[in-house]
Amino acid sequence: MKPTIGWIGLGNMGIPMATNLVKAGYDLTVYNRTAAKTESLQALGAKAATSARELVESVDVVITMLSDSATVEAVLLDEAGVLGGLRAGQTVIDMSTIAPETTRKVAEAVQARGVSLLDAPVSGSVKPATEGTLVILVGGEQAIYEQHKPIFDVLGKASFYFGANGQGSNAKLAINMMLGLALQGLSEALVLGEKTGLDRQTFLEMVGQTAVNSPIVAMKTPAILAGEHPAAFALKHMEKDFGLALDAAKSVEAALPATSAAHQTFVAAKANGLGDQDIMAILLQLEAMSGLK
Amino acid sequence: MKPTIGWIGLGNMGIPMATNLVKAGYDLTVYNRTAAKTESLQALGAKAATSARELVESVDVVITMLSDSATVEAVLLDEAGVLGGLRAGQTVIDMSTIAPETTRKVAEAVQARGVSLLDAPVSGSVKPATEGTLVILVGGEQAIYEQHKPIFDVLGKASFYFGANGQGSNAKLAINMMLGLALQGLSEALVLGEKTGLDRQTFLEMVGQTAVNSPIVAMKTPAILAGEHPAAFALKHMEKDFGLALDAAKSVEAALPATSAAHQTFVAAKANGLGDQDIMAILLQLEAMSGLK
Amino acid sequence: MKPTIGWIGLGNMGIPMATNLVKAGYDLTVYNRTAAKTESLQALGAKAATSARELVESVDVVITMLSDSATVEAVLLDEAGVLGGLRAGQTVIDMSTIAPETTRKVAEAVQARGVSLLDAPVSGSVKPATEGTLVILVGGEQAIYEQHKPIFDVLGKASFYFGANGQGSNAKLAINMMLGLALQGLSEALVLGEKTGLDRQTFLEMVGQTAVNSPIVAMKTPAILAGEHPAAFALKHMEKDFGLALDAAKSVEAALPATSAAHQTFVAAKANGLGDQDIMAILLQLEAMSGLK
Amino acid sequence: MKPTIGWIGLGNMGIPMATNLVKAGYDLTVYNRTAAKTESLQALGAKAATSARELVESVDVVITMLSDSATVEAVLLDEAGVLGGLRAGQTVIDMSTIAPETTRKVAEAVQARGVSLLDAPVSGSVKPATEGTLVILVGGEQAIYEQHKPIFDVLGKASFYFGANGQGSNAKLAINMMLGLALQGLSEALVLGEKTGLDRQTFLEMVGQTAVNSPIVAMKTPAILAGEHPAAFALKHMEKDFGLALDAAKSVEAALPATSAAHQTFVAAKANGLGDQDIMAILLQLEAMSGLK
Repeated sequence: MKPTIGWIGLGNMGIPMATNLVKAGYDLTVYNRTAAKTESLQALGAKAATSARELVESVDVVITMLSDSATVEAVLLDEAGVLGGLRAGQTVIDMSTIAPETTRKVAEAVQARGVSLLDAPVSGSVKPATEGTLVILVGGEQAIYEQHKPIFDVLGKASFYFGANGQGSNAKLAINMMLGLALQGLSEALVLGEKTGLDRQTFLEMVGQTAVNSPIVAMKTPAILAGEHPAAFALKHMEKDFGLALDAAKSVEAALPATSAAHQTFVAAKANGLGDQDIMAILLQLEAMSGLK
Repeated sequence: MKPTIGWIGLGNMGIPMATNLVKAGYDLTVYNRTAAKTESLQALGAKAATSARELVESVDVVITMLSDSATVEAVLLDEAGVLGGLRAGQTVIDMSTIAPETTRKVAEAVQARGVSLLDAPVSGSVKPATEGTLVILVGGEQAIYEQHKPIFDVLGKASFYFGANGQGSNAKLAINMMLGLALQGLSEALVLGEKTGLDRQTFLEMVGQTAVNSPIVAMKTPAILAGEHPAAFALKHMEKDFGLALDAAKSVEAALPATSAAHQTFVAAKANGLGDQDIMAILLQLEAMSGLK
Repeated sequence: MKPTIGWIGLGNMGIPMATNLVKAGYDLTVYNRTAAKTESLQALGAKAATSARELVESVDVVITMLSDSATVEAVLLDEAGVLGGLRAGQTVIDMSTIAPETTRKVAEAVQARGVSLLDAPVSGSVKPATEGTLVILVGGEQAIYEQHKPIFDVLGKASFYFGANGQGSNAKLAINMMLGLALQGLSEALVLGEKTGLDRQTFLEMVGQTAVNSPIVAMKTPAILAGEHPAAFALKHMEKDFGLALDAAKSVEAALPATSAAHQTFVAAKANGLGDQDIMAILLQLEAMSGLK
Repeated sequence: MKPTIGWIGLGNMGIPMATNLVKAGYDLTVYNRTAAKTESLQALGAKAATSARELVESVDVVITMLSDSATVEAVLLDEAGVLGGLRAGQTVIDMSTIAPETTRKVAEAVQARGVSLLDAPVSGSVKPATEGTLVILVGGEQAIYEQHKPIFDVLGKASFYFGANGQGSNAKLAINMMLGLALQGLSEALVLGEKTGLDRQTFLEMVGQTAVNSPIVAMKTPAILAGEHPAAFALKHMEKDFGLALDAAKSVEAALPATSAAHQTFVAAKANGLGDQDIMAILLQLEAMSGLK
């Protein structure tokens, strides 16, 4: 029998993910400070709780999809909210991208109530969230992961188990820094191409035929050619994730020279007002640094 | 009617490429200082010239596939060799990866003899060279490119025209720096993963499901897991190409911060004896820098 | 009349600094978990408290010189210790190098008790601490700084007022990153010199004659020539301070590309076991990265 | 008896240096394509040659102070000019900052005529050139250096012998990259200070009291506070010298991560039109990258 699920966090990612669970037949309760955000889900049959506490008390599994470490702490460790409402035997699945140390801190707190926690951040943005084709990176007890795999199978096309709590978060930071560096690398190549007179469209078609082609290149090609970068994944969030990856690297003594160089470019982009545009707007920052525009 | 072709440069790339031309029915003459290198091609029907001069005098099209800018200059600008043997109406196709300025210098010299030059470096290493699935990046006169496109169709799965002489070389430098940076990024992610305790095989499988997956990841996965890196594309050649890209960038005033950081890691790898291993051995250098092994 | 002072934190820096205050005639009380550390000061006339609480309750001014942000929080925000013992009108002077945000958090907590806080980290290591020639960087209320300037005049050769709480810490991070980068730059020059065959002693003498000469070069020259780097200022502390500077820069959106590149080299040095040696051991890491030794 | 000297290269550095030699009583002949440049020196008693060839034929020692490797090659290796006019027993002293490999190439060419060459680039810009307080870095035969030391004693406050030809150039690249990195580091600290609200003048005064203070800080302080950067040493020349240092490092396999990061910032500054301003204008580029102004 399917567990009942409570969902907290109805942003760009949370809404389509929760929608997929309702459509898959899960008994879903949602809570959001802004009640309007719950309407589309209620129209599909989801219930709405009037508080996080009420939500927690009425479900088997609590899923959170929040913006950062501080928000996750604020929501999950609130004695008057989620934390105080937990009861032994429940599972909390946190799908936010946060610092591994925050994951471990939260895990400890909920485990003290007899509750299991999985950190299960995702790779993929709004489109795969909507299509249920996310890639899900899981940390926590393996048995708990296996038990809840059906939920991940609805939300994503694949899920991977990486070990104890924090390892899902660590895997997410590692894959995200690859993403940021891939787009920094593409942008540096495009700037060199622009400066040396290569036709941009031809260059991108060529990339599409080579061993460094990746789905993200085709996804970003229309925006690159249009020169407009509405956010699919905001540049400021990539800057944050680079920061988390470098913090994790610092604490385990891993040297990441190119990641660090790319991060500084993202900091510059944010300082120059590009934070709310798409991650691909890093191209605009690199163009500015090379005297273009 | 197919033009007759003379091929100079029978290294790891040159032999399979020339072989494909013979198999496709081209009348091919080869020359190599080490005569033994020409045997397999002669067995397939190629002719062997006893000197570069003799080769040049007997063909319509001369193709060179050499190791660096200095060698290309030495071979093509030799008055007693290729240069002196050229006659108006011939075409030289240089498929080596060299500095765009060398391309332009050589083009000028051969054009003074009424001969056209295409710079046509390739993306792809031994396997696509053997399978005829290289990607070919062309600079020179467009009409000359169109005229010789059938040759490129034998050697590669796609060819792209990028403009005047030097633009094929520029495109090659831009795509190669993306390659180097992609493997540096993958390696930095793997080192972070190793230090934080992520299972490497699971991580690579996960990468294969995400938007940053590219053919090169799957190609390098067996070597990464085995920890052995016999050269498909030697690290020292990538170091050289990074250097050429940064030199080109310097001359056109393009700032490439992450490329430059990656290049320094490749210099370190070469200084630590990894130059003759595969480009993927950059992982070993990053591991050493993080105190692993 | 001189205020009575309580000193917490008797490490390599704290002991000589506290000693100078006693010698200057201040009525000083010390507390340290390891009682043995207080002996030399008691021999000079200092009193020893049996607890931080007792110390706080018996003095006008509390000075802390501790190792990091976490320790400062633990010591100053302890309700059963310092925090609970404070009374309105006292001043706390924290001379530790910590994150500006920690400074502001601690300042707020003590101000709620009617107590003023100055953040007053120092530039200089054991020798200037002993000689009373530190440079002191102060944040907090200007009047409180002026009031306690006589204390700073004993401890240092100069003190500078930088504004509200946290600004002393910010100034310290900025000057320390200059220090780290100066020694990274010196080391990179020495490695290039070593690889190109320049005599190291002659090179260092030459640096001493140029516009980039600074006291730190002469201070480190004997260790460089001896190839031995016992810690005056441990490399791991510089790595920590680089990290704090980059965290501060990230939060105010300042891009620091060379600082960030140097920081990664320090992370690599720490990962390779050089953390407990002197900051100048960064030379050994750069030598290793260039295949030397 | 003093040797007769011929001076080629009357730029910002050449004029005051040649002037000091005339004032010191040397019999000096000058040549410059723009004859007007020789007037001030002729007024002091220098002779003017009508060609480089005439100059070479009439002196014992030829000194060149030119802008880059290409110019040095063009001037010194001209068979119709300097090279053809040389006679056995003369000495050429090249004080330009050029690539070590160019030095060695030129040395070989003049030695074939029985002429000795010293590479003797200088550290210091117009002010020390005028005051005769340059620092001179010498490569070539030691006996030839000793023989001509009196000339260096007029031009500089110190000269250092670094070994065979090219070693003066190598030492110059190493000291110049320290200079560039020092000003990049100062600028990064100033940007962090600006973003966190530190008063710039106070910060610079503070730097002046610490172990990282160097003469260059005081020299640049007025320009920093005025925000105007007329060229003492043009930023584009520092960009060039960074490039030469990194090329030398690449060829000897030395990894220079922070130098490389700084170089990219200088490339960006040049791309943004700051090349003709003073090296200290790197601050403006770093401010722009952090969204200031």
